[in-house]
Amino acid sequence: MEKEMKLQNLKGTKDFLPEEQIVRERLKRTLEDTFQRYGYMPLETPILCSFDLLASKYGGGAEILKEIYKLNDQGGRELGLRYDLTTPFAKVIGMNPYLSMPFKRYEIGKVFRDGPVKTGRMREFVQCDVDIAGVKSMIAEAELMSMVVSVFDELDLDIYISYNNRKLLHGILLGIGAKDEQINEVVLTLDKVEKIGQEGIEKELLEKGIDENIVDKLIRLINDENIFNFDYILKNYDNELANEGKKEIKELNEYLEALGIIEYTRFTPFLARGLDIYTGTVYEVFLSDNSISSSIAAGGRYDKIIGSFLNNGNEYPAVGLTFGLDVIYTAMTIRDRVKADSLIDLLIIPLGTEKESLKLAWELRKQGIKVDIDMSERKLNKSLNTANKRGIPYVIVLGQNEINTGKVTIKDMLRGESIDVDVTQIKDKIMY
Amino acid sequence: MEKEMKLQNLKGTKDFLPEEQIVRERLKRTLEDTFQRYGYMPLETPILCSFDLLASKYGGGAEILKEIYKLNDQGGRELGLRYDLTTPFAKVIGMNPYLSMPFKRYEIGKVFRDGPVKTGRMREFVQCDVDIAGVKSMIAEAELMSMVVSVFDELDLDIYISYNNRKLLHGILLGIGAKDEQINEVVLTLDKVEKIGQEGIEKELLEKGIDENIVDKLIRLINDENIFNFDYILKNYDNELANEGKKEIKELNEYLEALGIIEYTRFTPFLARGLDIYTGTVYEVFLSDNSISSSIAAGGRYDKIIGSFLNNGNEYPAVGLTFGLDVIYTAMTIRDRVKADSLIDLLIIPLGTEKESLKLAWELRKQGIKVDIDMSERKLNKSLNTANKRGIPYVIVLGQNEINTGKVTIKDMLRGESIDVDVTQIKDKIMY
Repeated sequence: MEKEMKLQNLKGTKDFLPEEQIVRERLKRTLEDTFQRYGYMPLETPILCSFDLLASKYGGGAEILKEIYKLNDQGGRELGLRYDLTTPFAKVIGMNPYLSMPFKRYEIGKVFRDGPVKTGRMREFVQCDVDIAGVKSMIAEAELMSMVVSVFDELDLDIYISYNNRKLLHGILLGIGAKDEQINEVVLTLDKVEKIGQEGIEKELLEKGIDENIVDKLIRLINDENIFNFDYILKNYDNELANEGKKEIKELNEYLEALGIIEYTRFTPFLARGLDIYTGTVYEVFLSDNSISSSIAAGGRYDKIIGSFLNNGNEYPAVGLTFGLDVIYTAMTIRDRVKADSLIDLLIIPLGTEKESLKLAWELRKQGIKVDIDMSERKLNKSLNTANKRGIPYVIVLGQNEINTGKVTIKDMLRGESIDVDVTQIKDKIMY
Repeated sequence: MEKEMKLQNLKGTKDFLPEEQIVRERLKRTLEDTFQRYGYMPLETPILCSFDLLASKYGGGAEILKEIYKLNDQGGRELGLRYDLTTPFAKVIGMNPYLSMPFKRYEIGKVFRDGPVKTGRMREFVQCDVDIAGVKSMIAEAELMSMVVSVFDELDLDIYISYNNRKLLHGILLGIGAKDEQINEVVLTLDKVEKIGQEGIEKELLEKGIDENIVDKLIRLINDENIFNFDYILKNYDNELANEGKKEIKELNEYLEALGIIEYTRFTPFLARGLDIYTGTVYEVFLSDNSISSSIAAGGRYDKIIGSFLNNGNEYPAVGLTFGLDVIYTAMTIRDRVKADSLIDLLIIPLGTEKESLKLAWELRKQGIKVDIDMSERKLNKSLNTANKRGIPYVIVLGQNEINTGKVTIKDMLRGESIDVDVTQIKDKIMY
């Protein structure tokens, strides 16, 4: 009759079953609660956007343009699915001129990219973005970096923050004689030094047509231990961009020292984070034990993007931060801090007492206890086995006798003990 | 240079700015917490689906098929955006044969329908679905209905639940002589009795080609006050379907009585909720004061859908419930229970003390206080005005004097008072 359908998910998409989703939801709440403690407000923007908006100047370049899921609605409009949360953020600022600045918001939501599916790269995934618009001072990035420390402290993950300043990097490269118009290409290659090593850097720079002489100097630069020493840079590079960068890093460092979190940070002179967007501070967050090599959060300052995107003559200095929900989830799994705790506090198994069980569950839920009722109509042993597998800590088997006497036996599934209590005292026994 | 872009949202989509989104997030948490107390587990499914999946037999009929946003990926696959959360739920059950039944899940997520935009009808909107698969007994709908009472109790909204049974309605219609093959059409028309009245019903039924004789009987039926009396139905309608329906409603009523929530419910003999999907109990939730005329949550039993959708020979009895996030939000707004409370507990305004302000904020945030720092570099008066507008309850102005003495003045913005305290005692003063 019906054509048989093969049930599967699209490549690059997946279902999160309750076991995983419970942890992801908890993780989301930790993020939201911390964002709110730092004064960031929730914003929700549409996934469906006009294609023009997504493809506009800001865009993120041709790379991302290729990866936009494009569609038409019944009215023939050209639409696309958003590929990040920054474009909608800029749009909201442009559409709401009465918004008081500085504007601090977070958004946690799905984004879509029709790109190659590599390990850990999905086509539909969740981004958690925190941004502040309207602040030029380094106090903004200092606050974001202190929030990073708070978030991972809450999650009990040891991290460090690599940071740099794009103006400084640009200035250093000018200082060794790189040509202004080649600097973006050089930056892009140097950014990969940890991945492709010295040889890779040399090869790529020559392929890009950079002077041999400059390439030599660059190779000496990346081998120069002194470059990691900020004082050395202060003394040895002196041009307008380098000096601006130095001033910003000094200002930031003073904030980080005042906060007492400078030991969480590492000055990383070749860190660039992609090409065009960032104008000043950039930072990436890594696990201290390097059990995951990619960054688990990252961000930076993009002072020119919103303004040029909106093109309304106003300036919108901005700094932001993205947390990778799934990579943080993976980090939590690796550390084994995740498993097991059931969402359910108590399972009631009725023995022909469905009504009374429902009533008891109702009363316990009112007291804030998470209660499930076994509705499987299976044998008691099977029900108890399932409770065990689900990691449910407490079980009450409710028979006619329990109803007559008002006393129940709470099975403590983890300790293998039984406790007899009055029905009115169940909460006291299982909540602590 | 750049083509100027008109910034606007697509018809049927909107941004939720912080003021609204704060309340929606709080509402979502209340729903999630209540769902979890009732033993429902979170599930997250993709928005992007293969078009075949969305257009399969279950689908929801040609109506919904027309409204699917369709697109192709770069691999040329035909995709669509999900239009509900039930299809993905059925898919997950089909793809995971090891899932232990009964399976209880909730999902809160975006769905998309390219349909006409009427008042309150969006093209991209959030659904909050709770479903249980694998339970034939009425205990399942009783539990869901008690959960409805809990949810709206938490939200402080007075509601009632209209309910009916599709088998009973079908049986009653057979009882007055309607032909089996016309019953679905009749049901669909009767379902609108409150909207279009007796004349509308008569007209529509005749247009549908129902016998005049039957239409007369139907008109008499909807004018028969006795039909709202379940005992009357028990006596007067006696055929297989009616009897099955009566048995189910009796069973459900016994549960509702045991739970003590029957006074929240109203037996509503013509309630049907659409056409094909529902096989037994149906229910809709309304505000007691009717300040919103549409239902704010609704659901029912659909025993045949998942099985016929999966077509794997298994039966999957199921009952579900959808909460309308936006209509509930509107209900809360109408009651004025929403406004104002700021997400921020305390604003620190630095007077040349940015570093110390950041440090103080850091320490207070560690204590769980929601703190914002004024980074606007405006005059003090303007900052205080903004704090007032934002509804921030407490403000500290931090100058050099405060830092030297370790004492600060907390401005209580609501009472217009000032309190002098030691910096170590700020939490005690503003958290209660």
